[in-house]
Amino acid sequence: MTAPTPVSRATLKRLPLYLHVLEGLERQGQDHVSCTFIAGKFDFGAIQVRKDLEVTGVRGTARLGFKVTDLIRAIKVFLGWHNVQDAFLVGAGNMGKALLGYKDFESYGLNIVAVFDADPRKVGTKIFNKEVMPVAKMPALAKRMHINIGIVTVSAESAQSVVDAMVAAGIRAIWNFAPASLEIPEGIILENARLTQSLAVLSNKLTHVLNGDIKE
Amino acid sequence: MTAPTPVSRATLKRLPLYLHVLEGLERQGQDHVSCTFIAGKFDFGAIQVRKDLEVTGVRGTARLGFKVTDLIRAIKVFLGWHNVQDAFLVGAGNMGKALLGYKDFESYGLNIVAVFDADPRKVGTKIFNKEVMPVAKMPALAKRMHINIGIVTVSAESAQSVVDAMVAAGIRAIWNFAPASLEIPEGIILENARLTQSLAVLSNKLTHVLNGDIKE
Repeated sequence: MTAPTPVSRATLKRLPLYLHVLEGLERQGQDHVSCTFIAGKFDFGAIQVRKDLEVTGVRGTARLGFKVTDLIRAIKVFLGWHNVQDAFLVGAGNMGKALLGYKDFESYGLNIVAVFDADPRKVGTKIFNKEVMPVAKMPALAKRMHINIGIVTVSAESAQSVVDAMVAAGIRAIWNFAPASLEIPEGIILENARLTQSLAVLSNKLTHVLNGDIKE
Repeated sequence: MTAPTPVSRATLKRLPLYLHVLEGLERQGQDHVSCTFIAGKFDFGAIQVRKDLEVTGVRGTARLGFKVTDLIRAIKVFLGWHNVQDAFLVGAGNMGKALLGYKDFESYGLNIVAVFDADPRKVGTKIFNKEVMPVAKMPALAKRMHINIGIVTVSAESAQSVVDAMVAAGIRAIWNFAPASLEIPEGIILENARLTQSLAVLSNKLTHVLNGDIKE
């Protein structure tokens, strides 16, 4: 359904975790870090960390380990977060507002340049200084501005039609927050950011703990 | 770090995806569904779907497949979403607001009953009819109300101290949205809902596609 990448999805999903640790160390003014230190923050080992970090091309030194700033930069380059990409967001509901207000996205390479909604009562209102535009204007603007990323924060019922319009307008990558299973053409990147998946793991574990199935 | 469950994390994360498909079918008034139909919505096969659905205990019939309403109910029971759990949320920023405004959580077994923030300017304001309380009041209230779930939507810098206070107050499961690596005692459930992990997969794939590394 989505294009293959040379690096596993699991590694890609661990790199931001390392980045969070590294940014914490940078805030504390620490210069160097070892794989063992990073691994200590998670429940996987130093060998896994070392293997994951190899993809960035940064080499540590025997005694000191990795230079923190080098590693931060290299992970960002690897993830494509050093070049900021413009994105359109469709769906000015609460999730849409949260994403618009999330001030850290730019440091992760994402710049939401415009927001659209189908509801005429929302059109014309401002969210974090961005005026909500009618969704009918999205395709022409996306084409004109060569937008590559579309963020979908509409309801499950509306998601497929929004995605169809995005793809027709030349958008190459869809970040979907709607709880719907979407159909996309070959070659288009679809990444689902579903809170319910994370909640499922939490709820199931808690149920087992509360039922006493699992020794605490 | 977290308690083991009898079912794999991968299966737990696929069940909400099936649920979204099933809820779509229910809206369309469809009675029955096959594993093959569900599998067609994803890039894994019918055997995987059948194996995942076995954990719910629901059995399909040879010709008709699974009854949609039975399967929805069984998945919700399995995930613990049939019993609504009360949760506290700390951090009345944009992500906190988005979660408070997400109307579907109750159908996923989550009821956010109170919201807290450290910022005196936010205390006393209302978000979706819930008054923001000072974070200093959280531990005593969590104990008195026997709250099991704590949702963390504060900054990376504040997350650890909030989690420490939650754990000390008897909260058993932490749903963390802060981009920080948290330390929790044995037996406490920690689930990280990190948007940056999902964004990492999207950005990396898009970078490769735009660079022409991957044939579209």
